[in-house]
Amino acid sequence: MPAPRTAVPDKTLRTLVSDIFVAAGTSREHADTVSDVLVWANLRGVDSHGVSRVPRYLELFDKGEANPRPEIVVEELRSALAVIDADAAPGPVALSLAMHQAVSMARSSGVAWVAVRGTVHTGAIGYYTECAAQYGMAGLGIVAGVPNMAYTGSPVAGVATSPLSVAVPAGRHPIVLLDMATAVIALGRIAQHKASGRPLPEGAALSKDGRPTVDPAEAAIPLSMGGAKGAGMSLVFELLASGLTANPIVSSFHSGKPEGRRHRQNAVLLAVDISAFTPVDQFRAVVDDTVDAIKQLPASDPSQEILIPGERGARTFADRLTTGIPLPVPLVRKLCEQASALGAPVPEGLLSE
Amino acid sequence: MPAPRTAVPDKTLRTLVSDIFVAAGTSREHADTVSDVLVWANLRGVDSHGVSRVPRYLELFDKGEANPRPEIVVEELRSALAVIDADAAPGPVALSLAMHQAVSMARSSGVAWVAVRGTVHTGAIGYYTECAAQYGMAGLGIVAGVPNMAYTGSPVAGVATSPLSVAVPAGRHPIVLLDMATAVIALGRIAQHKASGRPLPEGAALSKDGRPTVDPAEAAIPLSMGGAKGAGMSLVFELLASGLTANPIVSSFHSGKPEGRRHRQNAVLLAVDISAFTPVDQFRAVVDDTVDAIKQLPASDPSQEILIPGERGARTFADRLTTGIPLPVPLVRKLCEQASALGAPVPEGLLSE
Repeated sequence: MPAPRTAVPDKTLRTLVSDIFVAAGTSREHADTVSDVLVWANLRGVDSHGVSRVPRYLELFDKGEANPRPEIVVEELRSALAVIDADAAPGPVALSLAMHQAVSMARSSGVAWVAVRGTVHTGAIGYYTECAAQYGMAGLGIVAGVPNMAYTGSPVAGVATSPLSVAVPAGRHPIVLLDMATAVIALGRIAQHKASGRPLPEGAALSKDGRPTVDPAEAAIPLSMGGAKGAGMSLVFELLASGLTANPIVSSFHSGKPEGRRHRQNAVLLAVDISAFTPVDQFRAVVDDTVDAIKQLPASDPSQEILIPGERGARTFADRLTTGIPLPVPLVRKLCEQASALGAPVPEGLLSE
Repeated sequence: MPAPRTAVPDKTLRTLVSDIFVAAGTSREHADTVSDVLVWANLRGVDSHGVSRVPRYLELFDKGEANPRPEIVVEELRSALAVIDADAAPGPVALSLAMHQAVSMARSSGVAWVAVRGTVHTGAIGYYTECAAQYGMAGLGIVAGVPNMAYTGSPVAGVATSPLSVAVPAGRHPIVLLDMATAVIALGRIAQHKASGRPLPEGAALSKDGRPTVDPAEAAIPLSMGGAKGAGMSLVFELLASGLTANPIVSSFHSGKPEGRRHRQNAVLLAVDISAFTPVDQFRAVVDDTVDAIKQLPASDPSQEILIPGERGARTFADRLTTGIPLPVPLVRKLCEQASALGAPVPEGLLSE
């Protein structure tokens, strides 16, 4: 049974989350970055990657696995290559910096590949690739993390549900924004099924003991999208993101050493300067024409609109900017309690209903 | 009923194919490149992308859609960005050049993104990404082509089965080589099911009139891997590969103009200089450790080995180097006939059995 919801204006939520992070020890700048990334996910309707993650960041600060005062080091290795040592900074801090670095370098070199070593919880990586698209560039991103998904042929958590995101700017249409896990259904979505009681599709998850299940309460290990394809993508993302930063996660996880199970992530972000190839307006026109062509395809079900990656999110974003973000009341209560406990201000009237 | 097969040594096959291309009007250098790429696919067991494609290239030459004497132009746009105008060169010619260009530029800039405009039939793109890995770099590639796969929510060919490939060098293990279509099963594999009479898996294809089917004889339109995920990947590959080269394929295809249906492809290849990040030997060790960790996972079926992307292909490659490439007799006969018709030499004893 889903919990009752209350609509919270995005600004209120951003302030609350930023205040919590400052109270937990981060700088205001970092707190604002984290809250912007999390609230962006809620605005887009990706609630699994939104402010519901705040308690987890606080827990990671408490355990010393995330660093509220990181000394982040940016190293430009070549004209188009940089590595950012995140010093266990929250993902939104490290990856926002990384994409700005990539955009800045791509202005001169045309493309830039920025690797991030040792961050935690990147949030929805579409935020960072969209950022590149807002600068008129193409943005690409991959993340590697601690195994939580089955690898083809094995019934245990072998690799991570590592996401891929690609964003390109359009003209009349919203930014085309693909942001997908390599799992059939990522863990956050399984949790949403559990909350609502809806069964999972076949072939999406295994139980803790490795049996296929459609019961979200029993589902523990997501299966990879397209079988060996999704598992293979996850594995090469690990090799790229963790291999290049010399910070292996998968092999360390399976080594049996306790530190191998510690939460951490590596990432790669790319920006491509479209204007080096073609006038950006001409590129936007190609994107618009392509989007139009796809949306005008004959529909399998005439009552169902054909959707472009990121289209639903852009609409939800516009809606929620106006109507507020519908959050489960227990989550809002929990955030308010955490704010109080840390001595951060709690917005008035947030739980008046 | 599958046709009887005959084992052909790779060198014999390479010579035959190269001679056919020279007789069809290409330079010996280009002919050798095409034959190497096609025979590589056969050696790896990817027979759908091997020498069975020769007749199709010849047909494209005849129709003027592929150019046996292309004037290929390489333009370095920025330190890490280049575009290659392929002038309708066969894909193996354009993409081999593109990956060598990428590797060369990545040596100084760290990463290079090389876009290819207007080629035909790229072959198995794992060939090019593996090439980067052989230079101790990471290689990535995507291709955009003429729509032949359903886009989610529509029962017609909306987007292409555009592949993604990633290759990284290992140490003790073979190069890790992911090379996957964005379809559940690509058209070449459907043809193999048809030849052998094996039914397709559920959810892999539609019939010509848009009905789901598992009958390979009826299957006409592949479905995308992971539903909206594979379709979205294909769409963003089109926007990257065709948008950046200002050579749209999908929108042109759906415009209704006859030239929009003409076979052509665009591509993007990337090389990343691992040594800019970390000593390559250290990277290889991470890859080896990760491969070991995955292969040692508990197996769902103890009689089934857990495989790494590219592992089976590397083994088949080693086997077929020794035992020859098992080709259907009718295909070998057809190649010999085409060679004869073009006045190219036909190796003796090829069809002696």
